[in-house]
Amino acid sequence: MAKIKVHVFLKPGVLDVQGKAVEGALQGLGWSGVSNARVGKLIEFDLTGAEDPQAEAKKMCEQLLANTVIESYRIEAT
Amino acid sequence: MAKIKVHVFLKPGVLDVQGKAVEGALQGLGWSGVSNARVGKLIEFDLTGAEDPQAEAKKMCEQLLANTVIESYRIEAT
Repeated sequence: MAKIKVHVFLKPGVLDVQGKAVEGALQGLGWSGVSNARVGKLIEFDLTGAEDPQAEAKKMCEQLLANTVIESYRIEAT
Repeated sequence: MAKIKVHVFLKPGVLDVQGKAVEGALQGLGWSGVSNARVGKLIEFDLTGAEDPQAEAKKMCEQLLANTVIESYRIEAT
């Protein structure tokens, strides 16, 4: 069984409104040194019966987990 | 300047509907070996002017970034 972790984040250059909101809120709470906030997704699951878990996870990202027009992803299989 | 990464995920035992949806969708696409899918958030930002970035990030999590009733968090400061 493989444990898969997929990080999905918006590509650089795509406006990250959720990140901007977090940044503004933290600054409003007094942390003026916060910048470049980005918010991404972290998807974790177990995968059994796959010969090459990394390759299977890549297919899952392309088909379902990431919107590859605006999002990048990074896969960790352990 | 410190680079902060905060992973926020639902505590074990809290029903993760988004994770269930991802799991069901992947199984529907033919990956029957997928189980225990969980979906979390990954918040990344730069922090300047903090003496102890790790401690500051912990305060941010407690105040804003995580709902500590149902969510846990893990901080990486580099």
